[in-house]
Amino acid sequence: MATVRLWTDEEVERDPAVKAVFDEIRASRGTKFVNNFWRALANDPPTLRRTWDSLKQVMGGPGALDPLTRELIYIAVSAANGCTYCIHSHTAAAKQKGMTDAQHMHLLAIIGMAAETNNLVNTLQVPVDPEFLVGG
Amino acid sequence: MATVRLWTDEEVERDPAVKAVFDEIRASRGTKFVNNFWRALANDPPTLRRTWDSLKQVMGGPGALDPLTRELIYIAVSAANGCTYCIHSHTAAAKQKGMTDAQHMHLLAIIGMAAETNNLVNTLQVPVDPEFLVGG
Amino acid sequence: MATVRLWTDEEVERDPAVKAVFDEIRASRGTKFVNNFWRALANDPPTLRRTWDSLKQVMGGPGALDPLTRELIYIAVSAANGCTYCIHSHTAAAKQKGMTDAQHMHLLAIIGMAAETNNLVNTLQVPVDPEFLVGG
Amino acid sequence: MATVRLWTDEEVERDPAVKAVFDEIRASRGTKFVNNFWRALANDPPTLRRTWDSLKQVMGGPGALDPLTRELIYIAVSAANGCTYCIHSHTAAAKQKGMTDAQHMHLLAIIGMAAETNNLVNTLQVPVDPEFLVGG
Amino acid sequence: MATVRLWTDEEVERDPAVKAVFDEIRASRGTKFVNNFWRALANDPPTLRRTWDSLKQVMGGPGALDPLTRELIYIAVSAANGCTYCIHSHTAAAKQKGMTDAQHMHLLAIIGMAAETNNLVNTLQVPVDPEFLVGG
Amino acid sequence: MATVRLWTDEEVERDPAVKAVFDEIRASRGTKFVNNFWRALANDPPTLRRTWDSLKQVMGGPGALDPLTRELIYIAVSAANGCTYCIHSHTAAAKQKGMTDAQHMHLLAIIGMAAETNNLVNTLQVPVDPEFLVGG
Repeated sequence: MATVRLWTDEEVERDPAVKAVFDEIRASRGTKFVNNFWRALANDPPTLRRTWDSLKQVMGGPGALDPLTRELIYIAVSAANGCTYCIHSHTAAAKQKGMTDAQHMHLLAIIGMAAETNNLVNTLQVPVDPEFLVGG
Repeated sequence: MATVRLWTDEEVERDPAVKAVFDEIRASRGTKFVNNFWRALANDPPTLRRTWDSLKQVMGGPGALDPLTRELIYIAVSAANGCTYCIHSHTAAAKQKGMTDAQHMHLLAIIGMAAETNNLVNTLQVPVDPEFLVGG
Repeated sequence: MATVRLWTDEEVERDPAVKAVFDEIRASRGTKFVNNFWRALANDPPTLRRTWDSLKQVMGGPGALDPLTRELIYIAVSAANGCTYCIHSHTAAAKQKGMTDAQHMHLLAIIGMAAETNNLVNTLQVPVDPEFLVGG
Repeated sequence: MATVRLWTDEEVERDPAVKAVFDEIRASRGTKFVNNFWRALANDPPTLRRTWDSLKQVMGGPGALDPLTRELIYIAVSAANGCTYCIHSHTAAAKQKGMTDAQHMHLLAIIGMAAETNNLVNTLQVPVDPEFLVGG
Repeated sequence: MATVRLWTDEEVERDPAVKAVFDEIRASRGTKFVNNFWRALANDPPTLRRTWDSLKQVMGGPGALDPLTRELIYIAVSAANGCTYCIHSHTAAAKQKGMTDAQHMHLLAIIGMAAETNNLVNTLQVPVDPEFLVGG
Repeated sequence: MATVRLWTDEEVERDPAVKAVFDEIRASRGTKFVNNFWRALANDPPTLRRTWDSLKQVMGGPGALDPLTRELIYIAVSAANGCTYCIHSHTAAAKQKGMTDAQHMHLLAIIGMAAETNNLVNTLQVPVDPEFLVGG
């Protein structure tokens, strides 16, 4: 259960700043469904606006990485941070952008393997090889 | 400075189990350079063997994700775990597999954005929308 | 569901060391309600005693930071560590100490922003500016 | 050593989009010194612009929390995430905003205590008390 | 609810590669019960096989640490990573290998204490004493 | 470089509260060497006292786990939290309490394996089996 109130559609309608963002989310995604994350952020319209604008730029705008790769990276960070909600919402987004079951399971294997070697390296305190340094 | 000894090439030569893995690493990468991670793991030959075999399967074998995407995911997990060595070594690997500066910076923007929303969601304790559940 | 038994009031009554801490918690907070954290720690009376004494000193005793600021910091750490229970209990405590909805949402924005830049910095491996070092 | 190039003042001068942000940072802080974080982000002007605008809004704009409290929260998150650079830069910022040595050490005690109970709770898997739920 | 399908015993029977691993798990543990982790990994037979083989080697094979100590370390890492499932499954495994309630609560105290000092040290950025370095 | 001053022996001599703790540390360890962690905490005598008392109780006092096992758990948490200083200081402590090289490397393998499965489970969002619940 959330630590703040999740705004209903009726409440959203009554706040023009919130409604403007919700309208953009709906238009951009082509569905009336707006997920709980945005209903929680609605409690703080400037953060709602800033977060949506950032997300649009980073995840939806033009960029060097394709849309599906962006979602895979998002899931990987969310798993490392143990964010249940984020894993669920971005797994759904990745599927919508074409993630196959095989890609999902390969993603998983990489996430697990990276976490394993991260912890091996941290416990060993392996010094960075000079060959890996930029301009080194 | 490492918490264990980093094996020199001379030491590696004297231990057949370690030498076998080092030979495979060199053959697979087409270079005599073997980075410090493996020189640290050499202190435990079964872990050295198991880790190399796993890494070969997950990062180098056939799979649903292309080699560069695999490295981007690896960097993302390493950044979330704050593993300095892993960030350096896999950034180098990603560049070798063709990561452009623009892709590198886009990766960064996604990692930052994901971490921001992970923490927003965690503090808000947003409940998972039923629409995101598998078979829900 | 907990990995240990949560002590009921009846069980607490029968163990003088546990009862003494529960009595202090109730007196200090002015309510008979004792939350589940303490009922779990009751399985180890020395840890229960030590944890309560520490918490009293750090969160309740005299100090350079005011009570509400202390709770905001507590929530920030708990969110970064993904501790659901801690986020809920310290959000409740912060509200009781006067946290407004606007402060709650501002806290959230800072937590998210800090996590974003933490991960940007970690991936970029930005070197610390000499200007930031103490006595540098 | 960074995984990207840190832009010098000369390079900044030659890129109008980067220069515009650096000018704002200098004006806002009343010093010519611009720290390495921004010199790293300069490699990606849109991320540089977006991050500075967000930081200005969250850390510098009007808000429900005072400037020093904002920095204390920032340090707490950075410590939990183990971000060395962020701890150094925001400790410097907090001192500039008036953090006393006593407040610094009290901050530290709270961060440590929160991390301890976070891990106690996680290992115990303490269920959230219904009393802590919003609208529960 | 999982982000992938959990395989039923009927499905497992129909896939020889999956069935082979499930048979080994059952034989090794002396029970027909196979927990959900393996039913999720069944979606990717090579990862299922690799993970089981690794786990057998590290947790079940000959080694310098006794079986119970291995489980205590596993729980400690899982608590630090906030992995609810892992805490539950390895707490159950530790009990089966003889963990007493007193050992469980002592484990907890150490995990909490380590997390506290980790965060104190990270915020203080304490430099490593030369005395602690290997070959220093 | 630390974010606070590290107290020299001369400064310690002049503050009776700090000196008392340093004397106890020296007596308890049978050496004049006091590591940097305590020299940093000296800036806040009540936190210095509380932390030393807690550490003595948890790591040095009577308890259900033997001294070496306690250190192994401490290292595991420190690795998961990426605390460089803590890994170095507790690896040194573990060696002093008899940790062999083989035990060190086995510890490492478990830490890595636990981190891998933690992240596999988190990405898969595997539901806890009812069999694992206490009193379930």
